[in-house]
Amino acid sequence: MFRTAELGRKVGKKEYKERALILRQQLLEMQQKLNSRDKNPLIIVFAGVDGAGKGETVNLLNEWMDPRWITTRAYDTPTQEERERPEYWRFWRDLPANGKIGLYLSSWYSRPVLDRVKGNISLSEYDEQLQQIISFENSLVDDGAIILKFWMHLSKGAQKVRFTTLEKDPKQSWRVTKQDWKHWKKYDKFLSAAERVIMRTSTGGSPWHIIEGGDANYRSLTVGEMILESVDKKLLHLEQRDAARLNNPNFSERESDSSTTITTNANQSSTTLLSSLDMSNMLSKKDYKQELIKQQGILNKLHRKALAKGISTLLLFEGADAAGKGGAIRRITAALDARNVQVIPIAAPTDEEKAHHYLWRFWRHLSRAGRFTIFDRSWYGRVLVERVEKFASEREWRRAYAEINDFENQLAEHNIVLVKFWVHIDKDEQLTRFKAREVTPHKKWKLTDEDWRNREKWDEYEQAVNDMIEHTSTHNSPWVLVEGNSKLYSRIKVIKTVCEHLSRALDNR
Amino acid sequence: MFRTAELGRKVGKKEYKERALILRQQLLEMQQKLNSRDKNPLIIVFAGVDGAGKGETVNLLNEWMDPRWITTRAYDTPTQEERERPEYWRFWRDLPANGKIGLYLSSWYSRPVLDRVKGNISLSEYDEQLQQIISFENSLVDDGAIILKFWMHLSKGAQKVRFTTLEKDPKQSWRVTKQDWKHWKKYDKFLSAAERVIMRTSTGGSPWHIIEGGDANYRSLTVGEMILESVDKKLLHLEQRDAARLNNPNFSERESDSSTTITTNANQSSTTLLSSLDMSNMLSKKDYKQELIKQQGILNKLHRKALAKGISTLLLFEGADAAGKGGAIRRITAALDARNVQVIPIAAPTDEEKAHHYLWRFWRHLSRAGRFTIFDRSWYGRVLVERVEKFASEREWRRAYAEINDFENQLAEHNIVLVKFWVHIDKDEQLTRFKAREVTPHKKWKLTDEDWRNREKWDEYEQAVNDMIEHTSTHNSPWVLVEGNSKLYSRIKVIKTVCEHLSRALDNR
Repeated sequence: MFRTAELGRKVGKKEYKERALILRQQLLEMQQKLNSRDKNPLIIVFAGVDGAGKGETVNLLNEWMDPRWITTRAYDTPTQEERERPEYWRFWRDLPANGKIGLYLSSWYSRPVLDRVKGNISLSEYDEQLQQIISFENSLVDDGAIILKFWMHLSKGAQKVRFTTLEKDPKQSWRVTKQDWKHWKKYDKFLSAAERVIMRTSTGGSPWHIIEGGDANYRSLTVGEMILESVDKKLLHLEQRDAARLNNPNFSERESDSSTTITTNANQSSTTLLSSLDMSNMLSKKDYKQELIKQQGILNKLHRKALAKGISTLLLFEGADAAGKGGAIRRITAALDARNVQVIPIAAPTDEEKAHHYLWRFWRHLSRAGRFTIFDRSWYGRVLVERVEKFASEREWRRAYAEINDFENQLAEHNIVLVKFWVHIDKDEQLTRFKAREVTPHKKWKLTDEDWRNREKWDEYEQAVNDMIEHTSTHNSPWVLVEGNSKLYSRIKVIKTVCEHLSRALDNR
Repeated sequence: MFRTAELGRKVGKKEYKERALILRQQLLEMQQKLNSRDKNPLIIVFAGVDGAGKGETVNLLNEWMDPRWITTRAYDTPTQEERERPEYWRFWRDLPANGKIGLYLSSWYSRPVLDRVKGNISLSEYDEQLQQIISFENSLVDDGAIILKFWMHLSKGAQKVRFTTLEKDPKQSWRVTKQDWKHWKKYDKFLSAAERVIMRTSTGGSPWHIIEGGDANYRSLTVGEMILESVDKKLLHLEQRDAARLNNPNFSERESDSSTTITTNANQSSTTLLSSLDMSNMLSKKDYKQELIKQQGILNKLHRKALAKGISTLLLFEGADAAGKGGAIRRITAALDARNVQVIPIAAPTDEEKAHHYLWRFWRHLSRAGRFTIFDRSWYGRVLVERVEKFASEREWRRAYAEINDFENQLAEHNIVLVKFWVHIDKDEQLTRFKAREVTPHKKWKLTDEDWRNREKWDEYEQAVNDMIEHTSTHNSPWVLVEGNSKLYSRIKVIKTVCEHLSRALDNR
């Protein structure tokens, strides 16, 4: 695979100067185009052999382009805070916004490759991790990201020569570390791990380019010209697609080859999951009070255990307006120490959030180990309000099912207890509550014109909810449907369910 | 001090219901006013005796008001990532944005009080930390924040009764922990530490209110009504002030009584710091190359030591357009491992940033222990471009000197090596460079209309720079003035200076 990158290609000083002059000008123009379009982040990953010029190339790109729109990232061993979240948390956190460029000197590839080289993981575990990378990158590409990956290559012999030459020069010897030599001894293992990376993770949306790293002039020009060519091509393609979509709203083209579209055939019959709920479930005020204080006590004890064991809990609440989500949430927080719980009400995104993948804002809220995070509305907005209100295109919300399942899988793998509640009320009950809100001064604010507008789309929402549950109720993170016509009943069901899930998780650890 | 909070005041059920109904309605209106005005965050700190209802009050406020615009914070022992930054980093990070409300269940007061109760710090150390709090709060108040602080009180006897009653009820006993009893034994020490907090840190801008915590009805109404009254009064005052300013641009009123305005009398003569620089300093290309590789080697070794010892370095670069800041920065990063260095180019703030105190965006970029953070332009924009372009009022940029000194002191106390560079070129040299940029294709982008406009204000900028250096060049963090007419000379001076500072810091540890 790497033979073509061991040809000893070089570019002379004079030619380099000439070509570099034109290239940096073009790169700047490309960067300005990207920035003014403001719809696509550019992610450039560098990996490869030590001494093949990864760092130098990144420095050069920072010099050639406008550094205000570039961030350079390199990941070290995860910190405690990072270890307390799923692995990809730190990658999500740092993603460049639309129009910006992220250069990665070490990335999501580093740990799998290193683990494989050291023999910490089997080949099938390795493949699984590479599959995770593919899902991650596809999800970004589907959202408009342009991803380029460069593998900087140097033959084993060339690497040795480079290290020895540097070491001989007293002024440059600091550039070669003991670790460099340690890695050099594992060259062959490293190369075989690399080969697999390139074979498995070079997709249409995020391809690898192998670069011969021996000659600085050659590799700089090659990387620069490839960036230019790829981005220009991609931008042209995106503009054409935008135009095509404008003319034909049903225009559909897959950005990545990854996620399988799930065609839904449920919910065609009149009996749906929601319509089969027994909405007459009730609870007396006396039973409620007794049960509430009992469950809060249980929850409090369970949470202290979970905290000690570092088991996090993530609850999310979805439901129609006035379904009683807030009330149920407050009955839970009242049993917990405020230091260890965060309620995240999901309102309109800020501009920083809008400039990223829609999942970005949820990743940024993940709590440390052992804590409770409660989302009042959540990432499911993508397949509910954004679907019904057409803020997201059909292509976008359809692929969200797979993206969300992937996200939740990562939470589950990190041993986070995830419970998803759909608090359901029927249409009559909503009307009763709306009317009660209208006449109660301190509840009036909760009722907006939007609530009435949403109500008109009741059937569309119900369809969306049924589809959502159909596609995202998985073994690891099932949906809990809560009969919400009786507030007292639903609050108890919610807190009891949380206790059950948490208790089960504690038993399994 | 707390005698008036031991009167046993109570509110009956019926009266509570009536008053609460009105109150929550008014609180909602207040919240909406705050949110639509969108200029002031509201910070409410709760502290006091365990069992006096801090948590319950916060839960109640979350129920009464619109939780989408409220965040509740409570701070535990700092995490590793937090310990690697100055103490206030985590408080800055979490500050509510304009129009939003932050409720604090434990806050910047917790650690000093606890340290004092445990006898870990002397009285004068305690006072120093309280002084730090005053600076912090004043800086927020000056920026428009409304701060309210509630001390929830319970007598030693009442606290004991409460704990015992709860413990007797099997369903409520989980509410009392061993730690509660441990704290109870230290009640007297705690109270004397508390008294000092309230005496020292109750300022006009952020006063303490002592609340009798025994009766839930009484304390809930009292807290709620005090919030309402204080915020309404403050908002009215702010609106009047805004109107007064509109009519009279020179209108000036001190928000806090804290920071002393420094009247500047320097720079009235024709000899200024900048004009006294020897701008003829130069370096030959050969000497430059030799010296550069030598200094990069020294820097690399120093930084590895600093990394091992956890000593962070923070460099900031200011200078006229085309002064060569970027070039100097790249010579430094080239000597460092990209994993351990972040370059932060300061461009226009995002909307999340605009909705906070101007220092907020810099706090959020502080790196972990041992790393290099390089700011290309910095918080000094407040007293340079914002002053000259009148984005900040005179009152705002004048008080920024003290705020910046306070910020940098916190960095110094955290043993961060801070070096501030002013890269200086004279007016002729700038013209030469502008003209060169105009004809070099890959440099043309660097030259904008704004650069030409800034140039017209050369004298105003020079005045601002001289004032800045005069007010913010302190013993701990002096300004380094770099003669920049020769790029080669200035790059070497910069990297050499960094090495000197870092080396000195390493010797002292």
